[in-house]
Amino acid sequence: MRIEVICTGDEVLSGKVVNSNFSFISQKLGDFGFSLDWETTVGDDRESLLLAFRLASQRADAVIVNGGLGPTVDDLSQEIAAQAAGVSLVLNKTWLVSMESFFTKRGRIMPANNIKQAMLPEGAEVLDNPIGTACGFALLIGKARFYFTPGVPRELFRMLEEQIVPRLLKQNGRQSVVLLKRFHSYGIGESHADELLSGLESLAPSGSVKLGFRAHYPQLETKLTARGEEVNALRAMMAPLENEVRARLGHFIIGEDDQSLEGVIVDELIKANATLTLVETFTAGQISARLMPLPQAQGRVLRNTVAQDKAQLSSALGLSLPLSALDVANAKQAAIAARLQSGSTLGMAILVVVDEGVDRVEFSGEVSVAIADANGHCFSRLSRIAGGREWVRLGAVEMGLDSLRRHLQGLPMNERTDFEKPKNTNKTV
Amino acid sequence: MRIEVICTGDEVLSGKVVNSNFSFISQKLGDFGFSLDWETTVGDDRESLLLAFRLASQRADAVIVNGGLGPTVDDLSQEIAAQAAGVSLVLNKTWLVSMESFFTKRGRIMPANNIKQAMLPEGAEVLDNPIGTACGFALLIGKARFYFTPGVPRELFRMLEEQIVPRLLKQNGRQSVVLLKRFHSYGIGESHADELLSGLESLAPSGSVKLGFRAHYPQLETKLTARGEEVNALRAMMAPLENEVRARLGHFIIGEDDQSLEGVIVDELIKANATLTLVETFTAGQISARLMPLPQAQGRVLRNTVAQDKAQLSSALGLSLPLSALDVANAKQAAIAARLQSGSTLGMAILVVVDEGVDRVEFSGEVSVAIADANGHCFSRLSRIAGGREWVRLGAVEMGLDSLRRHLQGLPMNERTDFEKPKNTNKTV
Repeated sequence: MRIEVICTGDEVLSGKVVNSNFSFISQKLGDFGFSLDWETTVGDDRESLLLAFRLASQRADAVIVNGGLGPTVDDLSQEIAAQAAGVSLVLNKTWLVSMESFFTKRGRIMPANNIKQAMLPEGAEVLDNPIGTACGFALLIGKARFYFTPGVPRELFRMLEEQIVPRLLKQNGRQSVVLLKRFHSYGIGESHADELLSGLESLAPSGSVKLGFRAHYPQLETKLTARGEEVNALRAMMAPLENEVRARLGHFIIGEDDQSLEGVIVDELIKANATLTLVETFTAGQISARLMPLPQAQGRVLRNTVAQDKAQLSSALGLSLPLSALDVANAKQAAIAARLQSGSTLGMAILVVVDEGVDRVEFSGEVSVAIADANGHCFSRLSRIAGGREWVRLGAVEMGLDSLRRHLQGLPMNERTDFEKPKNTNKTV
Repeated sequence: MRIEVICTGDEVLSGKVVNSNFSFISQKLGDFGFSLDWETTVGDDRESLLLAFRLASQRADAVIVNGGLGPTVDDLSQEIAAQAAGVSLVLNKTWLVSMESFFTKRGRIMPANNIKQAMLPEGAEVLDNPIGTACGFALLIGKARFYFTPGVPRELFRMLEEQIVPRLLKQNGRQSVVLLKRFHSYGIGESHADELLSGLESLAPSGSVKLGFRAHYPQLETKLTARGEEVNALRAMMAPLENEVRARLGHFIIGEDDQSLEGVIVDELIKANATLTLVETFTAGQISARLMPLPQAQGRVLRNTVAQDKAQLSSALGLSLPLSALDVANAKQAAIAARLQSGSTLGMAILVVVDEGVDRVEFSGEVSVAIADANGHCFSRLSRIAGGREWVRLGAVEMGLDSLRRHLQGLPMNERTDFEKPKNTNKTV
C-alpha cells in the first residue's frame, strides 16, 4: 500500500515550526509495519492545497493530511478537500452538538466561527477527536482514501493511534500482525547501544525482527519490531531477543513499553510504602514536576525545597550548621535534614555546581546526588556532565531520578553513564 | 519567484530524523525576503527522486535539493539530476583535486569511493563546500534552476548562505522584503482572538498584510506578515496595525516577537530590583522550573516550597496557625509567610484544589493565586479551570506566571480569561 503525508500550514512551510508532527506520523506508522513513500508540505494557500491533494490522490492509496482544521480563515482543509473530491460542504450536526458540549463542559459558550469546524465534505466519515474541537475526517479523493488530522500534536497523536492506524490496517487487507517491544534506558548513547546489541537480529529467522533506536536525550528507546501472521508465534520468536536485550543493557533499562522512569519510581515507592522529600538546586523544581503530577504519586512526594543559594537552602532546611558547598558531603547533609524535616522515609538532594561564563558546548556541571533512608544510611553519586547549560540541567534531572530508581530497586547507583566526563584518564569507554 | 525545496533521504522520510534542515533553509531564505511555495520529502529511491525533480522543475523557478551527495550507494542526487536534465555524469577534475587535498590535509588517503562525489551532471556549476567532500552544484532542469546541497547541517548552512542566497538574489532581480510581527497572549482562545481582530487586515492596502494565529495552550501567538519592496515602507504600513492589535488584545498580551512570559517576568523583577519566593501545590514545581533556568534569573527567585498537603505546607512555611484550606485566604497567608521566611521582596502562592475522581474533560480545579509585596499588601486572583487534570495544571502554571507579570507591570490581575469557568451565569464571553 502506497501512503503519502501532506503537511499544511504557513508555520511549517516558513520553517518557523520544525515539522515534528511529520516525524511522529512516520515513526508511528513504522511501528505498525507501514512505510511512507512521499511527503509534501504546502502553506495555507488554496491553489497549493488543491494541487497537493490532486497529485497525492493520483499516486497513493492512503493520504494523511495534517493541519488546517481550525476555526479561523486560514484553516482551509475541509474546503479544499470538498473541492478536490467534487462535493459540497455540509453541516455535520453530530459534530456541532459534540463541539457545543465541549464548550459547555468548560463553562464557555461556543464562538460563532467554530461552526466552520463542523462543515465537512459530503460523504466524509468523522474521525473522533475526544480532546479538541477540530473534527478529523476520512474521504475518498480520486483513488486514495484521505485522512484529515488536526495540527495540535496531542490531538493528532491520539487520532492517529485510535482512528487512523486501525483503518489503514483494515484498508491494507492482509491481517498482518505487528509486534513492537520497547525498552527505555538511561545512560547509554545510541551508537554504544548499537554496539552492545550487535548480532541481535540474527537470533531470529532472517529479516523477521528489526532493531531500531530513538534517542531523546537523556533517554534512549530501543525497539524490536516483528511482523507475521499470528501473534503467539511472534511472541515466542521475540522472547529470546527480549531477554538478550535485558541481559546486554542490564541496569541501564529503566522501563519497558509504556513504562516511564517517573512511573517506575512511584510504583516502587508504593511497593515499599515509602515517602519522599526532595531538595533541588540547579534543576529548579523539574524533578518534582516529573514525579508529583502522576495521580498515584499523591501522598508519596511530601515536599520539595528548591533554592540555588547555600544560605537560602540551609535556612529552608533548618540546618544549624549551614551548607559549606554544593558537593557530595553537603548533599548528604541536605538529604538527611530534608527527610527529618518532613518525616518522610526517604530524602534526596541534588546539588549542582555549574561552570562560570557563557553557555557553550563544553559548559559542564558537577552533580552530587544523595539519598538518605530511614535506617540512617546515606547513598551518593557524583558525576560531571557536559554539553551546555540545558544539557547539564536535563542530565542532572535524569541522574537524580535514575539514582532514586536504582536505590529503590536495590541496584548499584554508580554505574558510569555515557554522558559523564571520565574522572580519570586510565578509564576508557 | 517560485521556490521549492526537495529533502531526500530515508532517515528523514522514516521520521528517524526530525527535518530541521528544511526549517533552517526556509527561515534563512525568509531572512532575505524569499518565501517557499512547496516542500517535498522523498527517500533514497530512484523513481521517487526522478518524479520529485520533474514535478518541481515544471512548477518552480528555483529548487533547493538537500541530501544525497555522499560517497555511498544510497546517495543518488547527482545520478538522478543528470537523468532529469538529460545529460551524462562527467568527472569534475577540479573537485577531485580539491577532495584529494581535503584528505591530504588531514593526513589521510582518499578512499576510492569518494571519486563518486566528483562525478557531476554535464554543465553543472560547482557550489563550493570548504568544509566537506560533498560538492554542491547548480543545474538547469526544465525551467528551474536546481541547487544541490549536502545533508550535513553545517555544510548546508554555509553553502546556503555563501553560495545559494547570492545566486537567488541575482536570479530574482527585484529585492522583495518580508516583515513578520508576533504577539504572544495568555487568556484568549484562537477563535476569540480572531473575532477581536476582525477587519484588521483591511487597515492596510488589500492583500498586503496577512493575519495568522498559532495556538499552544495556554498561550496564543498572533502574527502579522507583510511583503513588499522596501523595509521602511513596510514598517510604516504595519505600525497602525500593530497598535490596533495592542489596543484590541490589551492586557492579555504577554510579550512581542522573541519575548517569553518568563523572560518578561524576570526582566520586570530586575527592573524593580525585586526578589521572589514561591509556594506551589498542584503545579508541582513547574513555575520555578520555568523561571529559574533563565540565566538572568540568578539571585531573583530565592526559594520555592512545593507540597500538596496542608500540614506539610504549614510546617515548611513555619506557620504558627496552620493552613485551614487551599483557598484564597490561605494563599495570602502562605505568600506572606514565604516572603518573610526567605527575605524576598515578593511572595507568591498558588494553591489548587482539584476535583475528586478519575480524569475526564469536565475535571476542573479551583486556583487561588496570592502575591504579597514588601509594603504589606497582598493581591489575589481566584478562578476555576476545567479541561482535565493536565489542562488544569498547565492553566494554573500560566495563571500564576501571568498574575506575577500583571502585578509587576501594574495591570489589573483579575481580567477574566477564556479558559475559566464563569463564576455566575449572567456573564457571557
